[in-house]
Amino acid sequence: MFEKIISEKNQKIKYLKKLYSKRGRREKGKLVLEGYRIIEEALKSDTVFEQMYMSPDFFNSSEGQFLKEKFLNKENTGNILIVDKKILDKIADTVSPQGVIAVVNEIKYETGDLFKEKGLLLLLDRIQDPGNMGTIIRTAVAAGLDGIIILKGSVDIYNQKVLRATMGAVFKIPLLQGLALEEFFELMDRSNYRLLCTDLTAERYYYQEEYKRPLIIAIGNEANGLDERLLQRSDYRVKIPITDRIESLNAAVAAGVIIYKLTEREWK
Amino acid sequence: MFEKIISEKNQKIKYLKKLYSKRGRREKGKLVLEGYRIIEEALKSDTVFEQMYMSPDFFNSSEGQFLKEKFLNKENTGNILIVDKKILDKIADTVSPQGVIAVVNEIKYETGDLFKEKGLLLLLDRIQDPGNMGTIIRTAVAAGLDGIIILKGSVDIYNQKVLRATMGAVFKIPLLQGLALEEFFELMDRSNYRLLCTDLTAERYYYQEEYKRPLIIAIGNEANGLDERLLQRSDYRVKIPITDRIESLNAAVAAGVIIYKLTEREWK
Repeated sequence: MFEKIISEKNQKIKYLKKLYSKRGRREKGKLVLEGYRIIEEALKSDTVFEQMYMSPDFFNSSEGQFLKEKFLNKENTGNILIVDKKILDKIADTVSPQGVIAVVNEIKYETGDLFKEKGLLLLLDRIQDPGNMGTIIRTAVAAGLDGIIILKGSVDIYNQKVLRATMGAVFKIPLLQGLALEEFFELMDRSNYRLLCTDLTAERYYYQEEYKRPLIIAIGNEANGLDERLLQRSDYRVKIPITDRIESLNAAVAAGVIIYKLTEREWK
Repeated sequence: MFEKIISEKNQKIKYLKKLYSKRGRREKGKLVLEGYRIIEEALKSDTVFEQMYMSPDFFNSSEGQFLKEKFLNKENTGNILIVDKKILDKIADTVSPQGVIAVVNEIKYETGDLFKEKGLLLLLDRIQDPGNMGTIIRTAVAAGLDGIIILKGSVDIYNQKVLRATMGAVFKIPLLQGLALEEFFELMDRSNYRLLCTDLTAERYYYQEEYKRPLIIAIGNEANGLDERLLQRSDYRVKIPITDRIESLNAAVAAGVIIYKLTEREWK
């Protein structure tokens, strides 16, 4: 149940290192979580834990105790590996990973997990900044959206910076990642979802439309906005107004303004 | 007009280093801008430039040419100093400051620059994250607010990470920084401004109120929200609803949702 690792050349350390690349994660269908907070959030969700790596100090701390208990109460978990803190620090992306790293199964969602009869989904087109990506996922969960579709060319949502910015929200919403635009259009064709595009050159303001469900809200790249093919296919094309003193809104703020406008009458 | 600096021990290099501390900046009443984009934005504003430091490569680039011209067309500017790129990289906060750093005068605003008859102001209470701070300033400019009051205990807005996240917006809005809460209340006492506080325990939702101007929108610390004394003094106390799957919204997103709700009927 507990296993002590002394050497950096241990197979389980090599395995962990591999999962720090996007390719390694995809091959194994796993992801890496760093630090107490996100691991605690993941333990509350249906996420399947493979193993946890802890420094001896963390293992013996009250936080370590808490995570251990939750971990051992979960089904299908592997071992807790006790590893020298220097080795952990060297592997981790975070400057101070707090002495704990977990490996969990990537959660696989199906189209049916996202598309609902009166649903409200988010489509992200080439969002680049990890902080923006994480904050948008957090906002979608906060507002109760049904799912997020992330097009190819966006930052990997299992990047540590994204995971941190989600504050755990990444485990609380169905996500489809890495779709090509054509694949997305095929999904649209097989559904009755409408498409809302935000675009600075649109004529109507976002608060002037009556939007019908089911609906997908599209948010575009920080510098270039949405792909022209999305704009052409949109059912609603609206802008968030800004003064001429600035070029654009931050993408996560724009997403928040639109998402909250769309949901504001639904809270009870 | 142009001056070449070879040594790190040059007085003007020592002076620049000093301005990289909050204390140094305050003593001299100056700030430091790194990189093409923010300097370009500052050159468009009323900001008074003291001097610019450029690497030889940047000096000879088309971007360098562009900044030089704008700089020389401004009044009261000092010299352009050509400095070895290694020296610049060593001083700069940014990993790649693009070979250009400018020293400009801090813009001093008076209370009268912010408080207007029907005005809409933002109050920031101990915002800690530089990215959030910069994004909130950018959003306030985008929405056309009249000014921002920043209470003591918030991150310094002249920190490079904040400046970068503002995307130049920091030069486009009156700002009062470093006020104690008592000083803020004195300003309130001398005005007829109302105070809107966001608070997760409030009973009413943000979109249910009819807000009267002049108004100050208060946004609180990322982890702890607003100071209790602000909540007690509020004229409107409202919440942005969130699902129980998450603890809170990101502070910059929350600010965006409220700010845009308050201004949405004013665009023409």
